[in-house]
Amino acid sequence: MVTTTMLDIETRGNTDVMDITQECRSAVEKSRLSAGTLTIFNPGSTGGISTLEYEPNLVKDLKESLEILAPTGKVYEHEKTWHDDNGSAHIRSAMMGPSFSVPFVNGELTLGTWQQIVFCDFDTRPRQRRLVLQVIGE
Amino acid sequence: MVTTTMLDIETRGNTDVMDITQECRSAVEKSRLSAGTLTIFNPGSTGGISTLEYEPNLVKDLKESLEILAPTGKVYEHEKTWHDDNGSAHIRSAMMGPSFSVPFVNGELTLGTWQQIVFCDFDTRPRQRRLVLQVIGE
Amino acid sequence: MVTTTMLDIETRGNTDVMDITQECRSAVEKSRLSAGTLTIFNPGSTGGISTLEYEPNLVKDLKESLEILAPTGKVYEHEKTWHDDNGSAHIRSAMMGPSFSVPFVNGELTLGTWQQIVFCDFDTRPRQRRLVLQVIGE
Repeated sequence: MVTTTMLDIETRGNTDVMDITQECRSAVEKSRLSAGTLTIFNPGSTGGISTLEYEPNLVKDLKESLEILAPTGKVYEHEKTWHDDNGSAHIRSAMMGPSFSVPFVNGELTLGTWQQIVFCDFDTRPRQRRLVLQVIGE
Repeated sequence: MVTTTMLDIETRGNTDVMDITQECRSAVEKSRLSAGTLTIFNPGSTGGISTLEYEPNLVKDLKESLEILAPTGKVYEHEKTWHDDNGSAHIRSAMMGPSFSVPFVNGELTLGTWQQIVFCDFDTRPRQRRLVLQVIGE
Repeated sequence: MVTTTMLDIETRGNTDVMDITQECRSAVEKSRLSAGTLTIFNPGSTGGISTLEYEPNLVKDLKESLEILAPTGKVYEHEKTWHDDNGSAHIRSAMMGPSFSVPFVNGELTLGTWQQIVFCDFDTRPRQRRLVLQVIGE
């Protein structure tokens, strides 16, 4: 069985890291399925989904590491195409990935105690996002 | 229900970034399923799959960022094992990941408007690839 | 149909890269399903799952590349929170991702010949891990 719900969130952009674990748990609960996989997907090319121990200092560390991979201050070729300044956001999204799957068992996500599901908005301005939460199972 | 199809593509290697969105849409259409998840998988350790706004300048940016993470000009330990020169390709593949899942609803992938599914061939020579497109749903 | 099994492993930490392909194959075999997707998930925020050509020199290369993205010697803000020293492990995990999906067909994983499924323990000490192996298919 498949159930799909949408999660609307407002972000501040600029690698805003948001804990969406509770909303993911709710999606599984509402499906009333016992076992299966939850897939969270961002329909857009400037966001990423992964897990993180969600605490403010680690969020700072993640932002700093992403500056190594794709610095925000750099001038990207992408800006020649659209005259926007979010080249770094696209690269971060492609590398972290905008899709994430978590198994659930007995109606509960198999997350670790210190592990939260995070949506990272890498775009360089506030955004309204509609994430797809899809549950497949039985 | 599960349907699996293969997608044969020829690449130029050297971080050739190819838009495979249309082929992914076709795989969902042919399955005749309404809702579920498409998983795209590269059976090999030198390719990656993700999404990207597919435009030439951003492709250049992605290549440049990957040079930070795993430079092509560096001598890798891996070369001692097989005398090949594709150490960078293996690292890039492991980090971007050779597997990608996208939910579909009402028979349509939930991609954003400016979001394409891309296969990146990081190998250092042209390759023939057979990607696995698997649809699970109902 | 969904079947979920647990895989207990002991790691040495410090980006210990472990080949878990055989255990993944067994999970698919035991499910007796013909086609579907295996999802491997690490319930924790300091491990990652991907594929790699599993040979010792490439493992060294991967470790070296991860030093660029998230150096082990750096002082992370995260240490102010818990006084532990595994900031690098959290960043590596978030970027590689603790979840990985592989399609199987005719009861066999669609892996390439030189492609192994690896669990990477990025934590800075030996750990006991219980990975989730979930098979969905028919």
